Amino acid sequence: MKEAVRKIREFNEERDWDQFHTPGNIAKPIMIEAGDLLACFQWSDDYDMEAVCDELGDVVNYCIVLADKLGVDLEEVVLNKLEKNRKKYPVEKARGSSLKYDRL
Amino acid sequence: MKEAVRKIREFNEERDWDQFHTPGNIAKPIMIEAGDLLACFQWSDDYDMEAVCDELGDVVNYCIVLADKLGVDLEEVVLNKLEKNRKKYPVEKARGSSLKYDRL
Amino acid sequence: MKEAVRKIREFNEERDWDQFHTPGNIAKPIMIEAGDLLACFQWSDDYDMEAVCDELGDVVNYCIVLADKLGVDLEEVVLNKLEKNRKKYPVEKARGSSLKYDRL
Amino acid sequence: MKEAVRKIREFNEERDWDQFHTPGNIAKPIMIEAGDLLACFQWSDDYDMEAVCDELGDVVNYCIVLADKLGVDLEEVVLNKLEKNRKKYPVEKARGSSLKYDRL
Repeated sequence: MKEAVRKIREFNEERDWDQFHTPGNIAKPIMIEAGDLLACFQWSDDYDMEAVCDELGDVVNYCIVLADKLGVDLEEVVLNKLEKNRKKYPVEKARGSSLKYDRL
Repeated sequence: MKEAVRKIREFNEERDWDQFHTPGNIAKPIMIEAGDLLACFQWSDDYDMEAVCDELGDVVNYCIVLADKLGVDLEEVVLNKLEKNRKKYPVEKARGSSLKYDRL
Repeated sequence: MKEAVRKIREFNEERDWDQFHTPGNIAKPIMIEAGDLLACFQWSDDYDMEAVCDELGDVVNYCIVLADKLGVDLEEVVLNKLEKNRKKYPVEKARGSSLKYDRL
Repeated sequence: MKEAVRKIREFNEERDWDQFHTPGNIAKPIMIEAGDLLACFQWSDDYDMEAVCDELGDVVNYCIVLADKLGVDLEEVVLNKLEKNRKKYPVEKARGSSLKYDRL
């Protein structure tokens, strides 16, 4: 993701958009774009591949900006949380189940 | 992100969770986790760094799963959309403005 | 809200849209419209009154459809939950605080 | 909804929470609660009636607060938007279709 991070930074600098990007302000478009992504599947599981990728790209774009603002490495963030999820969802309990961890 | 992709696949295979992961079904937790992320900033811009990172990690985790299910490379998806955003938000119009592209 | 409930039912019947309206399917547009509503405040607290009302109208429209599908009275649902919130947020603890109930 | 509006006002006044309730700030919990509602249907259409009603109650509670802050009547807002939706989705085109208005 090195190239994406670099290009996103450049994109926002060129437009002088950093001024709008407080962490709390970035959390909003992550959610809004996630809503647009969900809307691609609103009434059925059929989907327009290009539209889905465009919305997914926007979600992750803003996630990269947020990580950058927080000064954290996004892959590390993902791996750390995955490690916690391993404990919340131990294989022997969670296998084949879609229950939330507090109901396993 | 290679390591994250590999570990997330392993995590879901161990738990036999692929059966739940249709693209339309993955779009929901992306949004739900984005809601949890936004909730970290609900009433103020003060935030708990660990909580924010945990929620951000979950959002991106599901984005990685979705890209995997769609058979696309997530970084490419981000870069492709960024290219489109360059056209929607040309520097000379968008510089310093928070307006949506259709109002620039 | 009697008139709104009646007119929304009529609107959906005329279009034969009930077939799409399972509770799980209605929860998605509630969220999507809530995202559109949030987008009205994306980068600033300035807002376009008409746009905000339009998105708010759509959120509540779908909430009314969901209550209707569940066979519950929406006002009762709101009042019941408010009663629970009274217990989660007792006045003496919650007064003037924006903390979540589990941190009060 | 008169009673709900009155009781919600009272609830917030008792807790001195009006200070947090700018329109932009209220749009966030509407979305967050809508996420909790969607989470009730995350992996399947089976749902816990009480949990669904609780989340729905919270969504509409905040919608009522937002309407109150904006100084508008919520039922009127819903009816106005429904009227616009009639034009976006004319019966003869929209009947039996789940397509978005710009694709009808």
